[in-house]
Amino acid sequence: MLFERVAVIGVGLIGGSFALALKQAGACAQVVGAGRNAENVRLAQERGILDSVAPDAVAAAHGADLVLIAAPVAQFAKIFREIAPVLGPKALVTDAGSTKRDVIAAARSSLGRKIAQFVPAHPIAGAEKSGAAAASAELFRGKRVILTPLAENTDSSVRKVDAAWSACGARITRMEPEAHDALLAAVSHLPHLLAFALVHEIAGRENSAELFSFAAGGFRDFTRIASSHPEMWRDICSANTDHLLIELSRFEKRLAKVRALLEQRDAAGLEKLFAEARAARDKWIHSS
Amino acid sequence: MLFERVAVIGVGLIGGSFALALKQAGACAQVVGAGRNAENVRLAQERGILDSVAPDAVAAAHGADLVLIAAPVAQFAKIFREIAPVLGPKALVTDAGSTKRDVIAAARSSLGRKIAQFVPAHPIAGAEKSGAAAASAELFRGKRVILTPLAENTDSSVRKVDAAWSACGARITRMEPEAHDALLAAVSHLPHLLAFALVHEIAGRENSAELFSFAAGGFRDFTRIASSHPEMWRDICSANTDHLLIELSRFEKRLAKVRALLEQRDAAGLEKLFAEARAARDKWIHSS
Repeated sequence: MLFERVAVIGVGLIGGSFALALKQAGACAQVVGAGRNAENVRLAQERGILDSVAPDAVAAAHGADLVLIAAPVAQFAKIFREIAPVLGPKALVTDAGSTKRDVIAAARSSLGRKIAQFVPAHPIAGAEKSGAAAASAELFRGKRVILTPLAENTDSSVRKVDAAWSACGARITRMEPEAHDALLAAVSHLPHLLAFALVHEIAGRENSAELFSFAAGGFRDFTRIASSHPEMWRDICSANTDHLLIELSRFEKRLAKVRALLEQRDAAGLEKLFAEARAARDKWIHSS
Repeated sequence: MLFERVAVIGVGLIGGSFALALKQAGACAQVVGAGRNAENVRLAQERGILDSVAPDAVAAAHGADLVLIAAPVAQFAKIFREIAPVLGPKALVTDAGSTKRDVIAAARSSLGRKIAQFVPAHPIAGAEKSGAAAASAELFRGKRVILTPLAENTDSSVRKVDAAWSACGARITRMEPEAHDALLAAVSHLPHLLAFALVHEIAGRENSAELFSFAAGGFRDFTRIASSHPEMWRDICSANTDHLLIELSRFEKRLAKVRALLEQRDAAGLEKLFAEARAARDKWIHSS
C-alpha cells in the first residue's frame, strides 16, 4: 500500500482514472474527491471512483498523504493557496497540468515553504470524452507520464510520486519543466492551433455548410483536436506562448518550402517530401 | 439489371468496392477486371470481386457496357487512349479520380469523338487500407459521389452513371469540374499538405525520435493523412495547384491572425476563435 488517503481535486477523466487505477493496483486505501460539478462528483461516487466526497479542496486535502490536482490549470493557484495550510508534513502533491512552468510558478507563490512537497506531473493521456463517466482504470496503461521534479523535492518524494503514476500503468520520464513545455509545443500545442485555425477558416466562409458537407474521414481525423476545450487551450496557449511561437515559426518556414514547390510545379520535390513524411510517420506508428 | 458487363480498370479499394457493391445490388451481370498487380487481381477473383480477369485495359473494356477507371490518375491518359478504339457506341466510362479538370483534359485528348461517353465521377470515400483485400460492398454507402458531367454527355448517359453509383449506396451530387476541384482543395488537399508539412518538419529535427515518442492520440489523428500515398498526392497537387495555392494563402492569413493573438497575449481572442472553431466542427459532426 503506497498511500493511505488519496485526495483527487477535480474528478474528471484524468482525476477519476487516477483514482480507479490506484485502487485497482491496490496502491491506496481510500480516495476522497472534490469537484465543482456536484452531479459529476455524485456519479464518481456511484461508480466507485470515490470512497467519500469532500465539500471543497481544503476538506479533501485534509489528512491526505497524496493529493492529485486535476482541475483546469487556471484554478491551480487558488487550489494551492487553499490547501497549503492543511497539508501534513509528509503529504505529497502532484498534478496533471498540460504545461509545467506556469504550474510550478503558481505552486511556488502559493505553497510557500511546502513547495518541496509538490512533484509536478503531466500524464500524456486523454480522450475525446470527459468527466467521471469516461474515467477508466486503464487510461494511463502504457501511456507516458512526464515528471518535472523541483530542486526542492527530496529523492524520496519524487520516488513516491513516480510509484503512484507507475501503479497506474504509466511509463515515467523525468525532464526539466522548460524541456517539457518545448516538447509539448511541438507535438501537441501547435497541432491543436493548426486544427483550430483550419476549421475557423472554413467555418467563416459563405459556403461553409457546403464545404463541410463534402468533408470526409481525412478531414474529420485532421480536425478532431479542434473539438478540444477552448478554455483549456486558451490556458495552454497563454502558459506556453514562447515555445508555441517558436514552433509556429518553424512550421511557417516548412510551409513556405511546400508553397515554393507548388509554385515551381516541382512534382518530384513534393513527392519526395510526402514520401519522407509518410516514412517517418509510419516508422513512428509501427514502433509505438 | 443496369449493366451486362462492367469492366474495372484498377482493382484496388475503390475499383473492388464498386464491383462488389454493384453485384450485391444486382445491378450488373458480370465484372471483368484488369490491374497491374497480378497478385492483387488474383485475390480479387478469389474474393468474388471479379468474374474474370483480363490481361490489360483494352481486353477488359472490350464488350463492356460500363468501364470504371480506378487506377492512379497519372495513368488515365494512357488508359483512355488504349480503350477508345474498343469502346462500343453504347458503352459508358466513369472514373474515380480525386481531381476532375485534369482527368477531363486527358479524356478529351485521348477519347476523341467518344468523349460524350465519359461521365467523370469522384467518390469521396476511402480508407487507410488499400488493395482488393480491403474492398467492401459497403464502402460507398451513405458517402458522397460527385459527378462532373460534360457538355457532350447525353442526359441518358449521365443518368445511367448516376444510377450505377447510386446502386452502390452513394449520395450523388453534380457540379462543375472547376467547382469540384476548388471544393476538394479546401476540405481535402490543403489538410493533406498541412499534415505532410508538419510531420516533415518534426521528422527533420535532431531530436525527432524523442518528439515522436511523446506524441499522443491527438497527434496521431492529426497526422493520419500524412501516411497517404506520396505519388497519388503528388498528382493531386500537380493537377490542382491553382486552387491549392488559393487555399494555402487563405490558411496562411488565418494563421497570421492566430499568431497575432498569441503575440499580443490576447487570451480572450484565442478562446473566442477556439470556441467558434469547436462549435462549427461539432455542428458538422452532429449533422453528418
